[in-house]
Amino acid sequence: MSGKILAIALLGATSSAAVAESSQYSHSDSAAAVQNYAPLFQQELDRSRSFVDEMMKIGVVVPVPKDPGGGYTHEQHKQNFKIIYQAGQLYKLTGEQKYADYARDILLAYAALYPTLGEHPARKNSQSSGRLFWQVLNDAMWMVDSIQGYEAIRDSLSAADRQNIDDNLFRKAAAFLSTGSAVTFSKIHNHATWATAGVGMTGYVLGDRNLVDVALLGLDKSGKTGFLRQSELLFSPDGYYTEGPYYQRFALKPFIVFAGAIEKNDPARKIFEHRDGILLKALTTTIQLTYDGHFFPFNDAIRDKSLKTDELFHGVAVGYAKTRDPGLLSIAQWQGRTVLTDDGIMVAKDLASAKAKPFPFASLLLADGPEGKQGAVAIMRKGDGMTGQALVAKNSSQGMGHGHFDKLSWQYYDNGLEIVSDYGAARFLNIEAKQGGRYLPENESWAKQTIAHNSLVVDEKSHFNGDRKAADKRAPEQLYFSGEMGSQISSAKMADAYPGVDFTRTMALLEVKGLDQPLVVDVMRVAAEEDHQYDLPLHYNGHIMRVGFDLASHVADRPVLGEANGYQHIWIDGTGKPVSPDNAFLTWISKDRFYTARWVPQTGSQTILAESGANDPNFNLRREPMLVNRVKNAKDIVFASILEAHGRYDGAAERTTRSDSQVKTIQHVEDGEKDLLLIETLAGAQSVLAISYDPDADKKHKATIAGQKISWMGFAAHLQLAGE
Amino acid sequence: MSGKILAIALLGATSSAAVAESSQYSHSDSAAAVQNYAPLFQQELDRSRSFVDEMMKIGVVVPVPKDPGGGYTHEQHKQNFKIIYQAGQLYKLTGEQKYADYARDILLAYAALYPTLGEHPARKNSQSSGRLFWQVLNDAMWMVDSIQGYEAIRDSLSAADRQNIDDNLFRKAAAFLSTGSAVTFSKIHNHATWATAGVGMTGYVLGDRNLVDVALLGLDKSGKTGFLRQSELLFSPDGYYTEGPYYQRFALKPFIVFAGAIEKNDPARKIFEHRDGILLKALTTTIQLTYDGHFFPFNDAIRDKSLKTDELFHGVAVGYAKTRDPGLLSIAQWQGRTVLTDDGIMVAKDLASAKAKPFPFASLLLADGPEGKQGAVAIMRKGDGMTGQALVAKNSSQGMGHGHFDKLSWQYYDNGLEIVSDYGAARFLNIEAKQGGRYLPENESWAKQTIAHNSLVVDEKSHFNGDRKAADKRAPEQLYFSGEMGSQISSAKMADAYPGVDFTRTMALLEVKGLDQPLVVDVMRVAAEEDHQYDLPLHYNGHIMRVGFDLASHVADRPVLGEANGYQHIWIDGTGKPVSPDNAFLTWISKDRFYTARWVPQTGSQTILAESGANDPNFNLRREPMLVNRVKNAKDIVFASILEAHGRYDGAAERTTRSDSQVKTIQHVEDGEKDLLLIETLAGAQSVLAISYDPDADKKHKATIAGQKISWMGFAAHLQLAGE
Repeated sequence: MSGKILAIALLGATSSAAVAESSQYSHSDSAAAVQNYAPLFQQELDRSRSFVDEMMKIGVVVPVPKDPGGGYTHEQHKQNFKIIYQAGQLYKLTGEQKYADYARDILLAYAALYPTLGEHPARKNSQSSGRLFWQVLNDAMWMVDSIQGYEAIRDSLSAADRQNIDDNLFRKAAAFLSTGSAVTFSKIHNHATWATAGVGMTGYVLGDRNLVDVALLGLDKSGKTGFLRQSELLFSPDGYYTEGPYYQRFALKPFIVFAGAIEKNDPARKIFEHRDGILLKALTTTIQLTYDGHFFPFNDAIRDKSLKTDELFHGVAVGYAKTRDPGLLSIAQWQGRTVLTDDGIMVAKDLASAKAKPFPFASLLLADGPEGKQGAVAIMRKGDGMTGQALVAKNSSQGMGHGHFDKLSWQYYDNGLEIVSDYGAARFLNIEAKQGGRYLPENESWAKQTIAHNSLVVDEKSHFNGDRKAADKRAPEQLYFSGEMGSQISSAKMADAYPGVDFTRTMALLEVKGLDQPLVVDVMRVAAEEDHQYDLPLHYNGHIMRVGFDLASHVADRPVLGEANGYQHIWIDGTGKPVSPDNAFLTWISKDRFYTARWVPQTGSQTILAESGANDPNFNLRREPMLVNRVKNAKDIVFASILEAHGRYDGAAERTTRSDSQVKTIQHVEDGEKDLLLIETLAGAQSVLAISYDPDADKKHKATIAGQKISWMGFAAHLQLAGE
Repeated sequence: MSGKILAIALLGATSSAAVAESSQYSHSDSAAAVQNYAPLFQQELDRSRSFVDEMMKIGVVVPVPKDPGGGYTHEQHKQNFKIIYQAGQLYKLTGEQKYADYARDILLAYAALYPTLGEHPARKNSQSSGRLFWQVLNDAMWMVDSIQGYEAIRDSLSAADRQNIDDNLFRKAAAFLSTGSAVTFSKIHNHATWATAGVGMTGYVLGDRNLVDVALLGLDKSGKTGFLRQSELLFSPDGYYTEGPYYQRFALKPFIVFAGAIEKNDPARKIFEHRDGILLKALTTTIQLTYDGHFFPFNDAIRDKSLKTDELFHGVAVGYAKTRDPGLLSIAQWQGRTVLTDDGIMVAKDLASAKAKPFPFASLLLADGPEGKQGAVAIMRKGDGMTGQALVAKNSSQGMGHGHFDKLSWQYYDNGLEIVSDYGAARFLNIEAKQGGRYLPENESWAKQTIAHNSLVVDEKSHFNGDRKAADKRAPEQLYFSGEMGSQISSAKMADAYPGVDFTRTMALLEVKGLDQPLVVDVMRVAAEEDHQYDLPLHYNGHIMRVGFDLASHVADRPVLGEANGYQHIWIDGTGKPVSPDNAFLTWISKDRFYTARWVPQTGSQTILAESGANDPNFNLRREPMLVNRVKNAKDIVFASILEAHGRYDGAAERTTRSDSQVKTIQHVEDGEKDLLLIETLAGAQSVLAISYDPDADKKHKATIAGQKISWMGFAAHLQLAGE
């Protein structure tokens, strides 16, 4: 690891390397066959050709590893695996020798470099450090792409070059990723999926059965770890990945790509039928976990991740080739991208033949946990998955190290926007100025904390007191789900997130007569053995239009809400004490639509309007508004509230309609063990969400509300009462 | 003004009115001729037909005026003039009688209502109150559209109906708008333009020459007021409207529409040639005053206003019909809309014939004032008007009552976004909850104040001490402008905004070797007779990535910057004292690009990082970041700074490049009366902006900077020095 320079610099990128003469790639091989591809594939081919041709002008650039994520050598090695992959595919598709030559030369440079490498100088700890990159995960990702590029050109190489690249690069890298990084390789975790995929695909390409077996069955080949076990434990039977959609997207690529290689090399394994077709189910579930193409930002999610990402280009292409599901074609269309494989050719061709149908975004209950017993994610939708409504109840388990303390939290999407939001991760991916692009300290101090989510906080502490190990052991229990259009309801219970406190939350998306959009209803029932302080935050997205109640405002000296567990990051704007649902409301505008949150205030309760961003000297946090309903010294309690989307602001036409709430009032009635929430609109329509909490679907329940007798069957129901 | 109900309610909109049986309009007249229009026009026709047909189902709804802006009766009367206009055009285009009948019935309802009306109950003051609306301006807008709708059906009416509508509605309304609202009508102001247009067009339709003359020449027909005089005084010779682009857009419609009527009825007037074709010049200038289709938000501007607005649909159609400028077609294409007139038919047809060419967004100097002597707006661009760069120096005059105290302020656009921003107006147009949709108190206390702009604040007071009358009397002086690509430079001087203080600001958009985008350079030279405190704010749009200097942060108790003149609305995040341009910088990210502001710190100067939103108990303000460079107890001083756009954040590909500044340092040299600013990039390139302030273009100037002798001709120049 001396100052030896194998690197050849990008122009102007660094002064510590020289620029190579690389004109050997710059001529074009005009004799290559020209095929007619469908537009989507042709664009992909053109894009790739233009990218690789551009890179050829620069030449072979393989720097000695030095930088952490976001730094020069990190980005260059990332660039290189894309080049190797694409040059390989271009050679396969076009037959142009220059692409094989270029991929070969890069791989030869790596074959010279790789054996000289020790631990990465920018490693965080030895256990997970890579050779080419600061973390072994990136080495695995490098391998997954590079081995595919190598596969495409390997037959064209001289025996000597082949031997050199086989032995000095891929065998050594596979050894490093498997036995050399045994802890990571043996995890049941997406990092291990990348590693096993890289190693297993290398095994197929090199004809090394041992590598394949180790990848599939773990280092000891017992099947207790390895790729197959990962596919059993990492996805629930519904294809939900316990870390959440952002990592589901990330984990999907090695699953799908390695499965494709297994299918090709070991068809008898019927990998795509493994565990009831779990891999393809995981693919469609990944897509279901989006709104406007963006993943629900559960846990440590980077919010700008959408379906327009390499993993999903691969996923959609492989999935479509296996299933011919026309809904996947419309996703490819939205992506505007595909991959340089036979599957990509098929996607483009069938898309051009107008075979696409809208992807069936649906109301779904997605169980979490390998056996589907560790809670669930409930998705309630109306309209399409791009601009319709989506109410998401996150009743899933902690989801390992990237999990947040957000049990029974929720989000709401409408009109193309996230209206009730989840902060996601506190991280600026790959931006050097922000701690090298790693997770920021505020990811722990804010983003993971309960108060940063739309969940219940007891005594200003996070769930499980912020102890991830404890959180891993105890998942929510999904009690009920109905996806019936107009009356979608989900209910779940969380025990032991706080000692002696259980909470049960029922979320519903109800169509109420005369209202513009379906109404969100939220009934949170808390049962405790002792007195506590309860905070129920609502993180919303928009600009306040109207506060229904008097507010004591901190307009000239802004205090912080608390000391720890995320509270230190909250500025208080003002506090109020609404006493009735008639004035316990807040209206805001997001884009061109208005939203009103309305709740039944508890006796003595307080409402805090606030914003994130305190105690953030490095400006690491986004500043976002929130509302916190606080009840002190209470034992059993029910928080009942609604969220209403209404009206329209049309700036171009200078026309505004229904900018104020169309709901007159709401009323909560506790009838024994039952909860009833009545919603009365200004126009006089009355709706009730009635909850018995009784799982027996055939049992009839009766109650009285607003002087009217009602009855319903089973756990919960939505009733439209008499009224206009 | 009793409770008499002429109104027939929109379903569910109010309970104080009844719903009419209106099935007489609901049959369709299938015998109507079907013409083949180009797509854009056909869509317009379909949209209009669908709108009017929908309205017909509801019937005639003419409520007794009651509400202010945004309220029910206000919105309904606005709706009605759109219906009358469109039903009239539909009758003319399709010959379907039902449209004439519907427009007639609405007009008859108005003819019954109008004579009963006195002052509007929601008026602010008698002078400017309307009859149908709370302000007379809205009555005039009603008239401009309604009279065109009436014109289209008038010949089809029975003599009795015609007489009734002529006499009881339009004659009375014209009388009210002219002699009845003499103060407004006689102004040189856009409100008067709407009034004169409505009255004059009514004169043409009713064949009332007196109304036409009064409209064209003023109530006394002297020509000292009235439409013609307005067209001379309200636009500068470059077609700039002194109130700014937002109002320019608004004022344009009555000018263009009335001019169209004058051309038709009085072709000998050659109205479109009046004053060297000022009306069409005003149209193209209006379009030049946009970025990404949105108007530069000078003064009291609502920021979401774009070219997609009724006024510009009309403007583009009339303009194209007169000029056949193919650039206007591309604007129509971007708008995706046109109007229901012969001009609209032509626009759609020529657009379908692929005659469109990109609108030539250009670097321009637009003089302000009737004679072009009241300052100017300098626009410096690179690339297209949608995603390229635009540096805007607002060196124009106060612009009357909607003007802001922002002399020599600037904005910068890049990558489709406003990067250095202007707050615009503090107003939520037509949103009832926000003071009935009127200007908010914060429009005076924040939006108009100097500190809310990118301009110089002396002693924490606004320009002209916030006195608009004083501001109206003194405009900036544009000293120099060069639109030369790569070296665009504007320089202007402001005297008397503060007693005894002059300031001269030179803004430039320079292409510097090796940098991604052109660099913004800002040299502000202040000359004062006595010691003052100077604040130079930078209002930017983005999330802070890196602060170059140490910051004393207010992370747990956020103070306010000052007491008055806008300072009471500023929260302090932190303060620092950078001592060299090497660390006097701030880097932020906006969307996928990074920006670094860098400056030469003054001895003893302080930098304040802050945010708007303090002392805002009603949440009327947007919360936006700013940087303030403060120098205390200084007399003559030069603020020298640059703004650099660099790098890219690609979230999908997880790749970040050049997230840190590519500039090594900057250096300011004061050489006698001359200012020199040297920029040195990390790669070693050196550029100088040299300013002599000498208007003689033929005079040579010499200076020395960084040990190098340089020379240039005239006022200012951009020199690339030796270096890599």
